[in-house]
Amino acid sequence: MFITFEGGEGSGKTTCIKRIVEILEKEGNRVVLTREPGGTPISEEIRNVILDKKNTDMDPRTEALLYAAARRQHIVQKILPSLKEGKIVISDRFLDSSLAYQGGARGLGIEEIYRVNQYATEGLEPDITFFFDIDPEEGLRRIASNAGREVNRLDVEKLAFHQTVRGAFQELAKRFPKRFVVIDAAQKPDDVFNAVLKEIHQRIRK
Amino acid sequence: MFITFEGGEGSGKTTCIKRIVEILEKEGNRVVLTREPGGTPISEEIRNVILDKKNTDMDPRTEALLYAAARRQHIVQKILPSLKEGKIVISDRFLDSSLAYQGGARGLGIEEIYRVNQYATEGLEPDITFFFDIDPEEGLRRIASNAGREVNRLDVEKLAFHQTVRGAFQELAKRFPKRFVVIDAAQKPDDVFNAVLKEIHQRIRK
Repeated sequence: MFITFEGGEGSGKTTCIKRIVEILEKEGNRVVLTREPGGTPISEEIRNVILDKKNTDMDPRTEALLYAAARRQHIVQKILPSLKEGKIVISDRFLDSSLAYQGGARGLGIEEIYRVNQYATEGLEPDITFFFDIDPEEGLRRIASNAGREVNRLDVEKLAFHQTVRGAFQELAKRFPKRFVVIDAAQKPDDVFNAVLKEIHQRIRK
Repeated sequence: MFITFEGGEGSGKTTCIKRIVEILEKEGNRVVLTREPGGTPISEEIRNVILDKKNTDMDPRTEALLYAAARRQHIVQKILPSLKEGKIVISDRFLDSSLAYQGGARGLGIEEIYRVNQYATEGLEPDITFFFDIDPEEGLRRIASNAGREVNRLDVEKLAFHQTVRGAFQELAKRFPKRFVVIDAAQKPDDVFNAVLKEIHQRIRK
Protein backbone atom coordinates (compact mmCIF):
# COMPACT_ATOMS: atom_id res chain seq x y z
CA MET A 1 0.00 0.00 0.00
CA PHE A 2 1.30 3.39 -1.03
CA ILE A 3 0.27 6.33 1.17
CA THR A 4 1.24 9.96 0.65
CA PHE A 5 0.82 12.99 2.88
CA GLU A 6 0.38 16.43 1.42
CA GLY A 7 -0.31 19.88 2.78
CA GLY A 8 1.12 23.28 3.50
CA GLU A 9 3.51 24.42 6.20
CA GLY A 10 2.30 24.25 9.77
CA SER A 11 -0.31 21.63 8.96
CA GLY A 12 1.18 19.13 11.44
CA LYS A 13 1.73 16.62 8.65
CA THR A 14 5.23 15.49 9.61
CA THR A 15 4.43 15.04 13.31
CA CYS A 16 1.39 12.95 12.46
CA ILE A 17 3.35 10.78 10.01
CA LYS A 18 5.82 9.79 12.75
CA ARG A 19 3.02 8.59 15.01
CA ILE A 20 1.35 6.72 12.16
CA VAL A 21 4.56 4.88 11.27
CA GLU A 22 5.07 3.90 14.90
CA ILE A 23 1.61 2.47 15.34
CA LEU A 24 1.57 0.66 12.00
CA GLU A 25 4.88 -1.00 12.88
CA LYS A 26 3.56 -1.97 16.32
CA GLU A 27 0.64 -3.60 14.56
CA GLY A 28 3.11 -5.77 12.69
CA ASN A 29 3.28 -4.00 9.34
CA ARG A 30 6.56 -3.47 7.56
CA VAL A 31 6.65 0.26 6.85
CA VAL A 32 9.02 2.34 4.71
CA LEU A 33 9.00 6.06 5.49
CA THR A 34 10.35 8.31 2.77
CA ARG A 35 10.04 11.87 1.50
CA GLU A 36 10.22 14.08 -1.53
CA PRO A 37 12.20 15.65 -2.96
CA GLY A 38 14.81 13.05 -2.07
CA GLY A 39 14.50 9.47 -0.93
CA THR A 40 17.50 8.02 -2.80
CA PRO A 41 21.11 9.23 -3.16
CA ILE A 42 20.57 10.34 -6.77
CA SER A 43 17.31 12.08 -5.86
CA GLU A 44 19.10 13.83 -2.99
CA GLU A 45 21.78 15.02 -5.41
CA ILE A 46 19.07 16.42 -7.66
CA ARG A 47 17.37 17.99 -4.63
CA ASN A 48 20.65 19.75 -3.85
CA VAL A 49 20.73 21.28 -7.33
CA ILE A 50 17.12 22.48 -6.89
CA LEU A 51 17.72 23.96 -3.44
CA ASP A 52 21.23 25.37 -4.13
CA LYS A 53 21.03 29.04 -3.13
CA LYS A 54 23.37 29.97 -5.98
CA ASN A 55 20.73 28.81 -8.47
CA THR A 56 18.41 31.79 -8.13
CA ASP A 57 18.08 32.04 -11.91
CA MET A 58 16.61 28.56 -12.32
CA ASP A 59 13.78 28.52 -14.83
CA PRO A 60 10.48 27.15 -13.43
CA ARG A 61 10.35 24.46 -16.15
CA THR A 62 13.91 23.38 -15.34
CA GLU A 63 12.80 23.01 -11.74
CA ALA A 64 9.71 21.02 -12.71
CA LEU A 65 11.82 18.63 -14.83
CA LEU A 66 14.31 18.20 -11.98
CA TYR A 67 11.52 17.34 -9.54
CA ALA A 68 10.20 14.80 -12.04
CA ALA A 69 13.70 13.31 -12.47
CA ALA A 70 14.17 12.99 -8.70
CA ARG A 71 10.71 11.41 -8.42
CA ARG A 72 11.47 8.89 -11.16
CA GLN A 73 14.56 7.67 -9.35
CA HIS A 74 12.68 7.57 -6.05
CA ILE A 75 9.96 5.43 -7.60
CA VAL A 76 12.28 2.99 -9.36
CA GLN A 77 14.82 2.55 -6.58
CA LYS A 78 12.71 2.78 -3.46
CA ILE A 79 8.92 2.95 -3.79
CA LEU A 80 8.30 0.13 -6.30
CA PRO A 81 10.78 -2.35 -4.76
CA SER A 82 9.29 -1.76 -1.28
CA LEU A 83 5.73 -2.19 -2.57
CA LYS A 84 6.76 -5.44 -4.28
CA GLU A 85 8.06 -6.72 -0.94
CA GLY A 86 4.60 -6.12 0.52
CA LYS A 87 5.62 -3.13 2.61
CA ILE A 88 3.52 -0.06 3.36
CA VAL A 89 5.26 2.91 1.77
CA ILE A 90 4.57 6.30 3.31
CA SER A 91 5.90 9.36 1.52
CA ASP A 92 5.99 12.84 3.02
CA ARG A 93 5.00 14.68 -0.17
CA PHE A 94 4.80 13.17 -3.67
CA LEU A 95 3.32 13.99 -7.08
CA ASP A 96 0.59 16.28 -5.73
CA SER A 97 3.14 18.69 -4.27
CA SER A 98 4.49 19.26 -7.78
CA LEU A 99 0.95 19.69 -9.09
CA ALA A 100 -0.01 22.17 -6.36
CA TYR A 101 3.22 24.16 -6.07
CA GLN A 102 4.63 24.20 -9.62
CA GLY A 103 1.39 23.58 -11.47
CA GLY A 104 -0.93 25.71 -9.35
CA ALA A 105 0.93 28.34 -7.33
CA ARG A 106 3.79 28.98 -9.80
CA GLY A 107 1.33 29.04 -12.68
CA LEU A 108 2.87 26.32 -14.83
CA GLY A 109 -0.49 24.58 -15.13
CA ILE A 110 -1.64 21.45 -13.31
CA GLU A 111 -2.28 19.64 -16.64
CA GLU A 112 1.22 20.34 -17.93
CA ILE A 113 2.96 19.26 -14.73
CA TYR A 114 0.80 16.16 -14.61
CA ARG A 115 1.86 15.25 -18.16
CA VAL A 116 5.59 15.72 -17.48
CA ASN A 117 5.26 13.62 -14.36
CA GLN A 118 3.44 10.85 -16.19
CA TYR A 119 6.77 10.18 -17.88
CA ALA A 120 8.35 9.76 -14.44
CA THR A 121 5.57 7.78 -12.74
CA GLU A 122 4.31 5.65 -15.65
CA GLY A 123 0.92 5.92 -14.00
CA LEU A 124 1.90 5.04 -10.43
CA GLU A 125 -0.43 6.84 -8.05
CA PRO A 126 -0.84 6.56 -4.29
CA ASP A 127 -3.58 4.34 -2.86
CA ILE A 128 -4.37 7.06 -0.31
CA THR A 129 -3.33 10.71 -0.27
CA PHE A 130 -3.97 12.55 2.96
CA PHE A 131 -4.32 16.25 2.34
CA PHE A 132 -3.82 18.14 5.60
CA ASP A 133 -6.04 21.11 4.97
CA ILE A 134 -5.56 24.22 7.10
CA ASP A 135 -6.15 27.95 6.70
CA PRO A 136 -2.68 29.28 5.75
CA GLU A 137 -3.02 32.06 8.37
CA GLU A 138 -3.40 29.45 11.08
CA GLY A 139 -0.52 27.41 9.60
CA LEU A 140 1.79 30.42 9.61
CA ARG A 141 0.74 31.33 13.15
CA ARG A 142 1.73 27.83 14.29
CA ILE A 143 5.12 28.01 12.57
CA ALA A 144 5.86 31.44 14.04
CA SER A 145 4.86 30.38 17.54
CA ASN A 146 6.93 27.18 17.28
CA ALA A 147 9.88 29.44 16.47
CA GLY A 148 8.99 31.57 19.51
CA ARG A 149 7.98 34.68 17.59
CA GLU A 150 4.99 36.59 16.21
CA VAL A 151 3.76 36.46 12.62
CA ASN A 152 5.92 38.96 10.68
CA ARG A 153 5.72 40.91 7.45
CA LEU A 154 7.45 38.20 5.42
CA ASP A 155 4.96 35.61 6.65
CA VAL A 156 2.12 37.83 5.57
CA GLU A 157 3.64 38.34 2.13
CA LYS A 158 3.74 34.59 1.72
CA LEU A 159 0.08 34.28 2.62
CA ALA A 160 -1.26 34.80 -0.90
CA PHE A 161 1.11 32.14 -2.21
CA HIS A 162 0.02 29.62 0.40
CA GLN A 163 -3.61 30.39 -0.25
CA THR A 164 -3.08 29.53 -3.92
CA VAL A 165 -1.34 26.29 -2.93
CA ARG A 166 -4.29 25.42 -0.69
CA GLY A 167 -6.72 26.12 -3.52
CA ALA A 168 -4.71 23.85 -5.83
CA PHE A 169 -4.73 20.99 -3.31
CA GLN A 170 -8.48 21.39 -2.87
CA GLU A 171 -8.88 21.19 -6.64
CA LEU A 172 -6.76 18.02 -6.73
CA ALA A 173 -8.91 16.48 -4.00
CA LYS A 174 -11.94 16.96 -6.24
CA ARG A 175 -10.11 15.62 -9.24
CA PHE A 176 -8.87 12.45 -7.54
CA PRO A 177 -11.70 11.68 -5.12
CA LYS A 178 -10.86 7.96 -4.86
CA ARG A 179 -7.43 8.40 -3.38
CA PHE A 180 -7.71 11.84 -1.73
CA VAL A 181 -8.77 12.08 1.91
CA VAL A 182 -9.08 15.64 3.15
CA ILE A 183 -8.11 15.95 6.80
CA ASP A 184 -9.19 19.00 8.78
CA ALA A 185 -5.76 19.89 10.14
CA ALA A 186 -7.15 22.60 12.41
CA GLN A 187 -8.34 19.84 14.75
CA LYS A 188 -6.34 18.75 17.80
CA PRO A 189 -3.32 16.57 16.89
CA ASP A 190 -4.94 13.51 18.49
CA ASP A 191 -8.09 13.93 16.43
CA VAL A 192 -6.03 14.35 13.25
CA PHE A 193 -4.03 11.24 14.09
CA ASN A 194 -7.17 9.19 14.80
CA ALA A 195 -8.86 10.29 11.59
CA VAL A 196 -5.81 9.26 9.55
CA LEU A 197 -5.37 5.95 11.33
CA LYS A 198 -9.05 5.04 10.97
CA GLU A 199 -8.88 5.65 7.21
CA ILE A 200 -5.73 3.54 6.81
CA HIS A 201 -7.23 0.69 8.84
CA GLN A 202 -10.35 0.72 6.69
CA ARG A 203 -8.33 0.52 3.49
CA ILE A 204 -6.00 -2.18 4.80
CA ARG A 205 -8.97 -4.36 5.62
CA LYS A 206 -10.50 -4.03 2.17
CA MET B 1 20.25 31.71 -36.63
CA PHE B 2 20.46 28.56 -34.56
CA ILE B 3 22.77 25.82 -35.87
CA THR B 4 23.39 22.45 -34.24
CA PHE B 5 25.96 19.77 -34.99
CA GLU B 6 25.20 16.12 -34.34
CA GLY B 7 26.98 12.85 -34.98
CA GLY B 8 28.84 9.97 -33.42
CA GLU B 9 32.34 9.79 -32.04
CA GLY B 10 35.22 10.23 -34.47
CA SER B 11 33.03 12.08 -36.97
CA GLY B 12 35.26 15.16 -36.87
CA LYS B 13 32.34 17.30 -35.72
CA THR B 14 34.14 19.29 -33.02
CA THR B 15 37.17 20.10 -35.19
CA CYS B 16 34.94 21.34 -37.97
CA ILE B 17 32.87 23.50 -35.59
CA LYS B 18 35.98 25.39 -34.48
CA ARG B 19 36.89 26.28 -38.07
CA ILE B 20 33.31 27.31 -38.83
CA VAL B 21 33.15 29.63 -35.83
CA GLU B 22 36.46 31.24 -36.84
CA ILE B 23 35.42 31.93 -40.39
CA LEU B 24 31.95 33.17 -39.48
CA GLU B 25 33.48 35.62 -37.01
CA LYS B 26 36.00 36.78 -39.63
CA GLU B 27 33.08 37.46 -41.91
CA GLY B 28 31.70 39.83 -39.28
CA ASN B 29 29.06 37.64 -37.64
CA ARG B 30 28.62 37.57 -33.88
CA VAL B 31 28.81 33.90 -32.97
CA VAL B 32 28.06 32.08 -29.71
CA LEU B 33 29.56 28.60 -29.45
CA THR B 34 27.99 26.33 -26.88
CA ARG B 35 27.47 22.64 -26.19
CA GLU B 36 25.21 20.08 -24.58
CA PRO B 37 24.88 18.78 -22.00
CA GLY B 38 25.99 21.99 -20.29
CA GLY B 39 26.18 25.55 -21.54
CA THR B 40 25.13 27.33 -18.31
CA PRO B 41 26.23 26.88 -14.67
CA ILE B 42 22.97 25.15 -13.70
CA SER B 43 23.13 22.91 -16.77
CA GLU B 44 26.73 22.03 -15.91
CA GLU B 45 25.63 21.12 -12.39
CA ILE B 46 22.96 18.84 -13.85
CA ARG B 47 25.53 17.41 -16.28
CA ASN B 48 27.72 16.53 -13.28
CA VAL B 49 24.86 14.55 -11.72
CA ILE B 50 24.35 12.68 -15.01
CA LEU B 51 28.03 11.89 -15.51
CA ASP B 52 28.86 11.19 -11.84
CA LYS B 53 30.51 7.76 -11.82
CA LYS B 54 28.84 6.94 -8.49
CA ASN B 55 25.45 7.11 -10.19
CA THR B 56 25.63 3.78 -12.00
CA ASP B 57 22.10 2.90 -10.90
CA MET B 58 20.50 5.89 -12.60
CA ASP B 59 17.24 4.95 -14.31
CA PRO B 60 17.15 5.78 -18.05
CA ARG B 61 14.04 7.92 -17.60
CA THR B 62 15.70 9.87 -14.78
CA GLU B 63 18.59 10.52 -17.16
CA ALA B 64 16.24 11.63 -19.94
CA LEU B 65 14.47 14.06 -17.59
CA LEU B 66 17.82 15.44 -16.40
CA TYR B 67 18.97 16.04 -19.98
CA ALA B 68 15.68 17.83 -20.66
CA ALA B 69 16.11 19.96 -17.50
CA ALA B 70 19.67 20.93 -18.49
CA ARG B 71 18.44 21.75 -22.01
CA ARG B 72 15.63 23.94 -20.70
CA GLN B 73 18.06 26.06 -18.69
CA HIS B 74 20.47 26.23 -21.64
CA ILE B 75 17.69 27.48 -23.91
CA VAL B 76 16.30 30.07 -21.50
CA GLN B 77 19.59 31.46 -20.25
CA LYS B 78 21.82 31.24 -23.28
CA ILE B 79 20.32 30.22 -26.61
CA LEU B 80 17.21 32.42 -26.69
CA PRO B 81 18.89 35.59 -25.35
CA SER B 82 21.73 35.22 -27.90
CA LEU B 83 19.30 34.66 -30.76
CA LYS B 84 17.36 37.77 -29.69
CA GLU B 85 20.59 39.79 -29.90
CA GLY B 86 20.92 38.66 -33.52
CA LYS B 87 23.82 36.30 -32.88
CA ILE B 88 24.48 33.01 -34.63
CA VAL B 89 24.23 30.29 -31.99
CA ILE B 90 26.16 27.10 -32.69
CA SER B 91 25.60 24.16 -30.36
CA ASP B 92 27.75 21.05 -30.30
CA ARG B 93 24.88 18.59 -29.79
CA PHE B 94 21.28 19.48 -28.92
CA LEU B 95 17.83 17.86 -28.92
CA ASP B 96 18.66 15.26 -31.58
CA SER B 97 21.37 13.71 -29.41
CA SER B 98 18.70 12.92 -26.81
CA LEU B 99 16.42 11.56 -29.51
CA ALA B 100 19.16 9.35 -31.03
CA TYR B 101 20.92 8.17 -27.86
CA GLN B 102 18.12 7.92 -25.26
CA GLY B 103 15.22 7.54 -27.67
CA GLY B 104 16.86 5.31 -30.27
CA ALA B 105 19.89 3.47 -28.90
CA ARG B 106 18.70 3.11 -25.27
CA GLY B 107 15.26 2.08 -26.49
CA LEU B 108 13.19 4.72 -24.68
CA GLY B 109 11.43 5.63 -27.93
CA ILE B 110 12.07 8.67 -30.11
CA GLU B 111 8.41 9.79 -29.75
CA GLU B 112 8.51 9.67 -25.97
CA ILE B 113 11.79 11.56 -25.69
CA TYR B 114 10.52 14.11 -28.18
CA ARG B 115 7.42 14.67 -26.05
CA VAL B 116 9.36 15.14 -22.79
CA ASN B 117 11.69 17.57 -24.56
CA GLN B 118 8.80 19.57 -25.96
CA TYR B 119 8.19 20.68 -22.39
CA ALA B 120 11.78 21.95 -22.26
CA THR B 121 12.01 23.50 -25.73
CA GLU B 122 8.47 24.86 -26.14
CA GLY B 123 8.94 24.11 -29.82
CA LEU B 124 12.36 25.70 -30.34
CA GLU B 125 14.17 23.80 -33.10
CA PRO B 126 17.44 24.54 -34.87
CA ASP B 127 17.39 26.30 -38.24
CA ILE B 128 20.04 23.90 -39.47
CA THR B 129 21.20 20.61 -38.01
CA PHE B 130 24.37 19.16 -39.49
CA PHE B 131 24.48 15.43 -39.03
CA PHE B 132 28.04 14.19 -39.48
CA ASP B 133 27.37 10.74 -40.85
CA ILE B 134 30.13 8.16 -40.71
CA ASP B 135 30.38 4.38 -40.55
CA PRO B 136 30.94 3.72 -36.83
CA GLU B 137 33.81 1.33 -37.69
CA GLU B 138 35.63 4.16 -39.40
CA GLY B 139 34.80 6.54 -36.52
CA LEU B 140 36.20 4.12 -33.95
CA ARG B 141 39.30 3.54 -36.07
CA ARG B 142 39.95 7.29 -36.09
CA ILE B 143 39.53 7.60 -32.33
CA ALA B 144 41.85 4.66 -31.69
CA SER B 145 44.51 5.97 -34.04
CA ASN B 146 44.28 9.45 -32.50
CA ALA B 147 44.99 7.79 -29.16
CA GLY B 148 47.95 5.99 -30.78
CA ARG B 149 46.53 2.48 -30.55
CA GLU B 150 44.66 -0.18 -32.50
CA VAL B 151 40.92 -0.85 -32.34
CA ASN B 152 40.38 -3.10 -29.30
CA ARG B 153 37.75 -5.51 -28.02
CA LEU B 154 35.87 -2.81 -26.08
CA ASP B 155 35.65 -0.66 -29.19
CA VAL B 156 34.17 -3.57 -31.08
CA GLU B 157 31.62 -4.23 -28.35
CA LYS B 158 30.49 -0.64 -28.66
CA LEU B 159 30.01 -0.98 -32.40
CA ALA B 160 26.46 -2.29 -32.30
CA PHE B 161 25.46 0.59 -30.02
CA HIS B 162 26.97 3.17 -32.36
CA GLN B 163 25.33 1.55 -35.32
CA THR B 164 21.96 1.97 -33.63
CA VAL B 165 22.76 5.61 -32.88
CA ARG B 166 23.64 6.15 -36.53
CA GLY B 167 20.40 4.53 -37.63
CA ALA B 168 18.45 6.81 -35.29
CA PHE B 169 20.15 9.94 -36.65
CA GLN B 170 19.41 8.80 -40.20
CA GLU B 171 15.77 8.35 -39.22
CA LEU B 172 15.70 11.85 -37.72
CA ALA B 173 17.18 13.29 -40.92
CA LYS B 174 14.22 11.84 -42.81
CA ARG B 175 11.77 13.07 -40.24
CA PHE B 176 13.06 16.65 -40.19
CA PRO B 177 14.20 17.14 -43.80
CA LYS B 178 13.94 20.94 -43.66
CA ARG B 179 16.52 21.48 -40.98
CA PHE B 180 18.66 18.35 -41.33
CA VAL B 181 21.72 18.43 -43.58
CA VAL B 182 23.52 15.10 -43.79
CA ILE B 183 27.26 15.54 -44.18
CA ASP B 184 29.38 12.66 -45.44
CA ALA B 185 31.95 12.75 -42.65
CA ALA B 186 34.15 10.16 -44.36
CA GLN B 187 35.33 12.90 -46.72
CA LYS B 188 38.55 14.86 -46.15
CA PRO B 189 38.24 17.46 -43.37
CA ASP B 190 38.52 20.31 -45.90
CA ASP B 191 35.68 18.92 -47.98
CA VAL B 192 33.53 18.50 -44.88
CA PHE B 193 34.29 22.05 -43.81
CA ASN B 194 33.47 23.46 -47.26
CA ALA B 195 30.19 21.57 -47.47
CA VAL B 196 29.09 22.91 -44.08
CA LEU B 197 30.16 26.47 -44.83
CA LYS B 198 28.43 26.49 -48.20
CA GLU B 199 25.17 25.39 -46.59
CA ILE B 200 25.38 28.05 -43.87
CA HIS B 201 26.13 30.77 -46.42
CA GLN B 202 23.14 29.75 -48.50
CA ARG B 203 20.84 29.91 -45.50
CA ILE B 204 22.23 33.22 -44.23
CA ARG B 205 21.55 34.82 -47.63
CA LYS B 206 17.94 33.62 -47.72
